[in-house]
Amino acid sequence: MTRILRCTVEYDGTAFAGFQKQPGKETVQGALEAAIAKITSESLAVTGAGRTDAGVHAIGQVIHFRTASALPVETLQRAINACLSGAVRIRELLEADETFHARYSAVSREYRYLVENAAVPSALWRNRLYHVSHPLDVEAMDTAAVTLCGRHDFAAFGSPMVHTAIGADGEGTVEARGSTERTMFVARCWRQKRFVHFRFVADAFLRHMVRMVVGTLLRVGTGALMTQTIVKILHGDRTVSAGPAAPAHGLYLVHVRY
Amino acid sequence: MTRILRCTVEYDGTAFAGFQKQPGKETVQGALEAAIAKITSESLAVTGAGRTDAGVHAIGQVIHFRTASALPVETLQRAINACLSGAVRIRELLEADETFHARYSAVSREYRYLVENAAVPSALWRNRLYHVSHPLDVEAMDTAAVTLCGRHDFAAFGSPMVHTAIGADGEGTVEARGSTERTMFVARCWRQKRFVHFRFVADAFLRHMVRMVVGTLLRVGTGALMTQTIVKILHGDRTVSAGPAAPAHGLYLVHVRY
Repeated sequence: MTRILRCTVEYDGTAFAGFQKQPGKETVQGALEAAIAKITSESLAVTGAGRTDAGVHAIGQVIHFRTASALPVETLQRAINACLSGAVRIRELLEADETFHARYSAVSREYRYLVENAAVPSALWRNRLYHVSHPLDVEAMDTAAVTLCGRHDFAAFGSPMVHTAIGADGEGTVEARGSTERTMFVARCWRQKRFVHFRFVADAFLRHMVRMVVGTLLRVGTGALMTQTIVKILHGDRTVSAGPAAPAHGLYLVHVRY
Repeated sequence: MTRILRCTVEYDGTAFAGFQKQPGKETVQGALEAAIAKITSESLAVTGAGRTDAGVHAIGQVIHFRTASALPVETLQRAINACLSGAVRIRELLEADETFHARYSAVSREYRYLVENAAVPSALWRNRLYHVSHPLDVEAMDTAAVTLCGRHDFAAFGSPMVHTAIGADGEGTVEARGSTERTMFVARCWRQKRFVHFRFVADAFLRHMVRMVVGTLLRVGTGALMTQTIVKILHGDRTVSAGPAAPAHGLYLVHVRY
């Protein structure tokens, strides 16, 4: 008898070369698989809801794995956490039904991006947010962000998942493979003291999509780009381009809905 | 002509072997002196308001130094920050009068201590707070904390500053040297969601004093120590001892008043 277990995972992206397993590199997937294998004595594969890049953090990444272990969920969670470095933690471990798949069952993902808009960058937060010293028109950025909501072809803001030797590990359903159409449910930004927060909820995101969108919105914020230009980019106007991608260390995968 | 400059400094204590310069070790004082020397081409000494241990963070450490440089304060701040690693930042650099001394002129220091009281420790905050998984009676801890206010001999909670080959670099006025009497103005703790905050304001602190006080209060919080016992410890009752010291990475020097 095997069963499917579902975990909510938090990690400090600074400590890893991204989520997806890569030979010879410290990855979140690799760290989780090694820790779980120590407890269950199985060679198993972990599947994540989102493949985050090197430096990207997670508070609510969701993973699943199949195991023959009969240990209670509380015991498993405690034991696996004890085998992990402090940079990654299983916040919740639950029994899931046979049909549950961390990537394909997800109906939406929520990412946050954090900018520190101040003259001097913080020392304590240096790997947790992106420092921008020039003034930002956050209202104009928010107006531009909202225009991204709805069903669109986001090809200008990212690429579909990449199939590697290890296997495809992007976001979205099986049907979405190869397509660059996504549905953005929420795209907002706002100022809170010296911080600028970004919140994005979509059915799934293309590779680098949130960072490309944030990078583009920051150009709107400095006045380098008009608010309406973001619509031109979205519609495939080749005279303007999106980005550059904002750095990975300001990005957080915060929630996955099923 | 020389002048005295005063800086407010933020640093990530995890990156340093403490504030005070030590041969062959990465210290905050050493990093600041090296960066300032690059800009002013002088060999100079930096004095801090508080000597924080390895792992202890600062948001509002205050330092002063004497320089012959005639550069404007804005230019100096920008240039010195550009020579520092991201783990330490000068948040403010001001002209000070001839009598200003970061340590001796300070009338009070404020430290905060941050505990995460939850079943699973956070991955993202792992070097920023101390994780305690067992339940804490924060009300009892706060009652015990308040009894520390006033003028007391805090010998049970720490040692006076240590005079090393490099020189004495503790806290407090010249008069306070060697004495273990201090005046605590504020000692409080409170819960905010899964965090327990501690706030301490005193004229000066003994070495390890905040961490010893927090470690003692945590024993009150678990019920291992009665609230009144803290008064016995303070009064030098040898049948009970303070501590153990809570770990350095939950401690922040947040403000120095002049």
